[in-house]
Amino acid sequence: MLADMVVGLGTGSTAAFAVDRIGQLMKEGKLKNIVGVPTSIRTYEQAKSLGIPLATLDEQPVIDVAIDGADEVDPNLDVVKGRGGALLREKMVELASKKFVCIVDDSKMVSGLGGSKLAMPVEIVQFCHKYTLNRLQNLPEVAGCDAKLRMEGDKPYVTDNHNFIVDLYFTGEPIKNAKAASKAILDMDGVVDHGLFLDMVDVCIIAGKDGVVVQERK
Amino acid sequence: MLADMVVGLGTGSTAAFAVDRIGQLMKEGKLKNIVGVPTSIRTYEQAKSLGIPLATLDEQPVIDVAIDGADEVDPNLDVVKGRGGALLREKMVELASKKFVCIVDDSKMVSGLGGSKLAMPVEIVQFCHKYTLNRLQNLPEVAGCDAKLRMEGDKPYVTDNHNFIVDLYFTGEPIKNAKAASKAILDMDGVVDHGLFLDMVDVCIIAGKDGVVVQERK
Repeated sequence: MLADMVVGLGTGSTAAFAVDRIGQLMKEGKLKNIVGVPTSIRTYEQAKSLGIPLATLDEQPVIDVAIDGADEVDPNLDVVKGRGGALLREKMVELASKKFVCIVDDSKMVSGLGGSKLAMPVEIVQFCHKYTLNRLQNLPEVAGCDAKLRMEGDKPYVTDNHNFIVDLYFTGEPIKNAKAASKAILDMDGVVDHGLFLDMVDVCIIAGKDGVVVQERK
Repeated sequence: MLADMVVGLGTGSTAAFAVDRIGQLMKEGKLKNIVGVPTSIRTYEQAKSLGIPLATLDEQPVIDVAIDGADEVDPNLDVVKGRGGALLREKMVELASKKFVCIVDDSKMVSGLGGSKLAMPVEIVQFCHKYTLNRLQNLPEVAGCDAKLRMEGDKPYVTDNHNFIVDLYFTGEPIKNAKAASKAILDMDGVVDHGLFLDMVDVCIIAGKDGVVVQERK
C-alpha cells in the first residue's frame, strides 16, 4: 500500500487519545491511506484494535509526522520522555520523523529539564545494572541526581527491549547542561538510551485552563 | 572475601586458555585469593567448573587486570573484539580494569582496523533491526563497509543481552578514522555498543613463529 501519510504513534496517556482520534477519523472516512508506526507494544495493540494499518521502521524508514506526549517540556521545546518506559522506540521513531508534534498539558512545562523532580529515565542493559546505576549516580554532568532502579512490584521493570530502567531524580536543581548530560550518559558503556529528547520537537501543543497554545521551535 | 587480585576473564578461544591456566595455577596453590569477573555466560560456566571464585562488576566495580584475546590489533594497540558475540560485557569489564592485557597470535595484527576484512561487530536492539542495519551501512564514517545481520542457522544471532549483532565488513580499505567511526556508531539510536576497543589495551602479548613479543601502549 502506498500511504498518503506515515504517522509515528506515541505511547502514554496523552498519545493514546491521539491514536484513538486517528482511528475514529479513519472510521468516519475523514482520514485515508494512513499508515501508523507504533512506538511500543502497547500502542501497537491499541492501534491494531482500532483498525489502523501498521508498519515498522523497517518497512517505513521515513515518517511524515510523529505525535506523542512528553513528561517535561522546557522553553526551547527540549523534552524529557520515557516515564512510560518506551523511550528507546519513541526516540527511534521520532528521530525518523520529518515533523515531531508534542502534545502536553501546561503542568508539564518546566524552566529546566529535570525540574519537575520526577523521573528522567535511562535505559540500561541488565548486565551489572548496579554498577551502571552507581556510575550514573556519580556522573559529573548529572551531579546531585538521585538514581533509582525502576521496579515493577518486587522485580526490576523490564522494557520492550529486555533492558532495565534507571530513573534519575533531580531533587535539587534541574539539569544544568542537558546536551552535556545527554552526551555523557550515552557515552557510558551499559547505557542503551535516555529520556532527554533534544532538538527534536518541532511543534508543541500545550493545553491549559485558558485554551490551547501552539508553540513552534524557533 | 578480600581478594588479593580481581581478574577480568575474557571470552573466546584465546581467553579460554588463560582461564584454564588460572584454574590450574589455583589448583596447584600458586595463585591464591583470586576473584574472577567473567565477560560472558560461557566464560562464567568455564571458570565455575574450574573452581575459580567469581563476582560481577556489581560486587567488584574495580578490576586489577583483565585478560582477553582480540580479533584485530593495530600498531597503536587499538583492537577489534566481539566476533565471539560478547563485546558489550567484555567492554564493560575491560573499561573497569586498571590494566588490560590482550593476547593474540601475530595473524591478528593489521595496519588499520577492519583490515582483516573480517567482521567488526555492532550490537543493536532487536527493534527495527533492518532500519538500523541500513543506517549503519550508510554511515559516512564507515563508508564502503558491507553490513550484515549475524545469523545462527536461519535465525538472527542473539547476544547475552537479548540484542542482535550487525557485522561490518571492510572489504575495500580499512576504517579511515576509528575514533570518528566509534563516535558516530555509538551516537546512533538503536545501537548498544560496538567492537572497536580504542585506547583500552595497555599490554599486548603477541605470539609468532619466532616466539612471543610483548608490546606496551606508548
